[in-house]
Amino acid sequence: LDYQHVQVPFEITLWIMLASLAKIGFHLYNKLPSVVPESCLLIFVGLIMGGIIYGLNDRSPPVMDSDIFFLYLLPPIVLDAGYFMPSRPFFENIGTILLYAVVGTVWNVFGIGFSLYGICQVKAFRLQDVSLLHNLLFGSLIAAVDPVAVLAVFEEIHVNEKLHILVFGESLLNDAVTVVLYKLFRSFCEMPTIKSVDVFAGVGKFFVVGLGGVLVGLSFGFTAAFTTRFTKDIRVIEPLFVFLYSYLSYLTAEMFHLSGIVAIISCAMGMKRYVEANISLKSHTTVKYFMKMWSSVSDTLIFIFLGVSTIGENHEWNWPYICFTVIFCLIWRALGVLVLTFFVNRFHVNTITSKDQFIIAYGGLRGAICFSLVFLLPDFHRKKLFIAATTVVILFTVFIQGMTIRPLVDLLAVKRKRESAPTVGEQIHIRFLDHLLAGIEDISGHWGQYYWKDKLEYFNSKYLQKILLREYDQPKSSIVLLYEKLERKHAIELAQAGQLGHGPAHPSFLCSAFLCSSSDRTVITDQKLEDTLNPNVLDNMQEILARNLYRIRRTGPAYNRHTLPGESEPTEQAKEILILRHKSL
Amino acid sequence: LDYQHVQVPFEITLWIMLASLAKIGFHLYNKLPSVVPESCLLIFVGLIMGGIIYGLNDRSPPVMDSDIFFLYLLPPIVLDAGYFMPSRPFFENIGTILLYAVVGTVWNVFGIGFSLYGICQVKAFRLQDVSLLHNLLFGSLIAAVDPVAVLAVFEEIHVNEKLHILVFGESLLNDAVTVVLYKLFRSFCEMPTIKSVDVFAGVGKFFVVGLGGVLVGLSFGFTAAFTTRFTKDIRVIEPLFVFLYSYLSYLTAEMFHLSGIVAIISCAMGMKRYVEANISLKSHTTVKYFMKMWSSVSDTLIFIFLGVSTIGENHEWNWPYICFTVIFCLIWRALGVLVLTFFVNRFHVNTITSKDQFIIAYGGLRGAICFSLVFLLPDFHRKKLFIAATTVVILFTVFIQGMTIRPLVDLLAVKRKRESAPTVGEQIHIRFLDHLLAGIEDISGHWGQYYWKDKLEYFNSKYLQKILLREYDQPKSSIVLLYEKLERKHAIELAQAGQLGHGPAHPSFLCSAFLCSSSDRTVITDQKLEDTLNPNVLDNMQEILARNLYRIRRTGPAYNRHTLPGESEPTEQAKEILILRHKSL
Repeated sequence: LDYQHVQVPFEITLWIMLASLAKIGFHLYNKLPSVVPESCLLIFVGLIMGGIIYGLNDRSPPVMDSDIFFLYLLPPIVLDAGYFMPSRPFFENIGTILLYAVVGTVWNVFGIGFSLYGICQVKAFRLQDVSLLHNLLFGSLIAAVDPVAVLAVFEEIHVNEKLHILVFGESLLNDAVTVVLYKLFRSFCEMPTIKSVDVFAGVGKFFVVGLGGVLVGLSFGFTAAFTTRFTKDIRVIEPLFVFLYSYLSYLTAEMFHLSGIVAIISCAMGMKRYVEANISLKSHTTVKYFMKMWSSVSDTLIFIFLGVSTIGENHEWNWPYICFTVIFCLIWRALGVLVLTFFVNRFHVNTITSKDQFIIAYGGLRGAICFSLVFLLPDFHRKKLFIAATTVVILFTVFIQGMTIRPLVDLLAVKRKRESAPTVGEQIHIRFLDHLLAGIEDISGHWGQYYWKDKLEYFNSKYLQKILLREYDQPKSSIVLLYEKLERKHAIELAQAGQLGHGPAHPSFLCSAFLCSSSDRTVITDQKLEDTLNPNVLDNMQEILARNLYRIRRTGPAYNRHTLPGESEPTEQAKEILILRHKSL
Repeated sequence: LDYQHVQVPFEITLWIMLASLAKIGFHLYNKLPSVVPESCLLIFVGLIMGGIIYGLNDRSPPVMDSDIFFLYLLPPIVLDAGYFMPSRPFFENIGTILLYAVVGTVWNVFGIGFSLYGICQVKAFRLQDVSLLHNLLFGSLIAAVDPVAVLAVFEEIHVNEKLHILVFGESLLNDAVTVVLYKLFRSFCEMPTIKSVDVFAGVGKFFVVGLGGVLVGLSFGFTAAFTTRFTKDIRVIEPLFVFLYSYLSYLTAEMFHLSGIVAIISCAMGMKRYVEANISLKSHTTVKYFMKMWSSVSDTLIFIFLGVSTIGENHEWNWPYICFTVIFCLIWRALGVLVLTFFVNRFHVNTITSKDQFIIAYGGLRGAICFSLVFLLPDFHRKKLFIAATTVVILFTVFIQGMTIRPLVDLLAVKRKRESAPTVGEQIHIRFLDHLLAGIEDISGHWGQYYWKDKLEYFNSKYLQKILLREYDQPKSSIVLLYEKLERKHAIELAQAGQLGHGPAHPSFLCSAFLCSSSDRTVITDQKLEDTLNPNVLDNMQEILARNLYRIRRTGPAYNRHTLPGESEPTEQAKEILILRHKSL
């Protein structure tokens, strides 16, 4: 037996395997995941495992290494989040999100820090040796809402898109603030005296860390898009570039002490549309699937490790401090959301309701980021107290808030996400309204959101697409792309149901049947149109119209409860066409 | 700047990035890859990089770590090879492959070892201090044909399936022999005296290492298949299990000193058909794509590292020994193939031609496995000589043989691979012949290949499928699966060409049009058939027949050089159906 030799990969594989099997186990019993969020169950599994390890070895089980967390477990989750981020609601609410993420986090940090310092002054609690700076440092790590925890809970409760993006966007973007404040206070702790210059430098760092992250991310994202222009002959390594460049953007940002999370999100959002157009369909399926898989495994491992690391003797149980931490976290977040939303609502037509505000405040879950940061603290005599307080806050938010948020959403009747994907018609209308609003903004001289969006779109189609896309001479409209996607999905469904004909005929066939059945005038109009329009565009339009028109006419019998689709209907359809043809003959 | 923190993942990512970019670079110029195999170009890139590192640092560049090679780079390639191994030709030629892999490798080891020992006796070469055991040890590592190198070259030259599987199967299965002989001779080198018991124990080990590998692999493979039965609700982690279980099988085998390569191949071949049936289509695409991607990256890295590691001062250039090593490698392999094929051809109707024999002998490329094994040798004063000889043999086989094998295949007019996939009709006939031959073998009392295959198939459908497949009550015939696959492919092509209709109507419509146009007698026959056959099977048959019959009738105009498909034809088709319908009315 030669265990030494294979130990590292063997143990990593076993941990991943355990995590995946735990995931399968939960989903075997359908009732369990519908009541308790997966994150809670995973932490629970971790707690049990930690207990077993502790019981067997009689010493604390190994805690999650902060390096492993930040370098290997966090990036896949953030990449997944950034790549699948719905960009429209995100950019529509970017102002609100930034306000929550920057001002809100600073508010929380100082609120929690100063109030805890007040608690430390109470002699009965025996906490006088915890300085203001240490309390602020602790505040900076405990104030950060955790994207992993938020995602795990909010993905299951399906609140409306705006609410989701507000909470989730905040949890992602507050990373820049947390990084700066945490490092600032940590360096202050080690300095003998603090000059006012240092404080100003800290404020300046906000912008460097955040904007630097965006810059690093975008440059890697565009490089990735540019690289995929040349992969036509080796499709098989296309997905690799998406992962490699995003990961490099994260590592580079971390290397320069910028916000890695912001970098990887910018990278993913920047490259997405170009990469999607360049790589093959199968490559894209692989990218999407692997991203989801990877983030799902990372997520599972993080929660299990969180459970395992909780067990042990790293804690100092000073209950007053711990309880007040939980209370202050709740109070300051609620207050912050209330105050900030008041200002936000004054400048927006589409306001945030009080129900939404409650869910935003209540959805401020803490998770593995706090946990890793607290272990990264320099050694000082109260570190174990901070670890204990952080652990309790995380468990409280994940278990109590995470488990009650779903019933609360039901109870408050918070607006839910729409279930169906937008139709082609809706998309066309949204696009039309965008153009209209951009025009109005341009005329009125108000340089708002739509104006900038329009400018960006112009810049994109004028320069970026030509550099980054392989077939830049004929860029397809996103409407056509959406339509193609729906078509493909439909085709696969048809094939799986065994209802696909081999002839390349159907649509044109229907189309021609239509043209025949209508009067000759239409044909003449077509002729005219054909002269003025690009024939390619016309073909697309004709096809789309012909099919969708026919589809709408068909909807009646297609949804009949008593006939299976494809059972009696086809003959009817055939008949209908025949009758039409008959008449025209 | 905090480089220390991110060094490990950053450098790994950069190496992979470099490898991928090198790959893209080669394929940008179409002419280059068609003349020189990719492996040669990659080694060349590696040599240049090694030269640069050597020039800048003035010391040998880092050599490829054997642990990294065996634990991280080799498994993805072997997994890919095993998963996509064409099982039919492999099992049809398993006897021949085993003969080449076991007897052939032993022949080569002892042939090369003893002849080199003879060379060492020549006083002029100053090699008298290299003992027989050391020569045999060297022979055991240099005799092994390398699957990575073979795959890299043979994938590009497209020889016929049998020839490919003979060379490639040998290169995979000789791992068991190499492992045993290498470890045996290495332990003999360290022993003071060798007893005959040890030699016999060595022979026994062959079977343990090989069969143990198969056993470990199959048990992990079946566990993987069993696990994917329960992943219906979490499709997204399905691909993970394929990778995790295969990797675990490799590591477990290595841990017990069994053949990891044999284990991972058995695992992949064992699980493939069950996993494929259990997991979703998208998961399967991801599995296939990622396997190819991973193995392609590993492969690239191996060849680049091979180049980098060649540069440096690890070599002792005793040219007589090196030249004779190359010559003996060629001679003994050629002799071995000739002798073994003589015996093989006596027992087979479908003989191996002399052209094929030449390619088998010439295709015995050495690669990274030899290279890693020679660096794993215990330190002794002639290790650098062995390293130099191994390097030269690898470079000779990869460059000279690898670059000339394609022209030789063209020159000899070796039978090529058929380009098209087998049709449904062919598949049905092959299946039919298998059953027939199994029956004949059973009657004649000859327990041959077909008899065992039939028994295995029976065991599979009776027990294994029920345990390992999710929907075991209705196992689909592989013919139906193939048909569905073709359908799906066709559907996607249609959708991409924008030629798919939205109605779920076409096939049944065609079908009904057919039934209408034919006389009522057919309907009555159908009625009768329906009584005797399973309705499901009947549905399948009807559909397949209806579509394919119509398709055959259509083939004439569809291949007309002057009309584009879907241009004028659809209306014709519609007319045709209308006329038929008209007549019947």
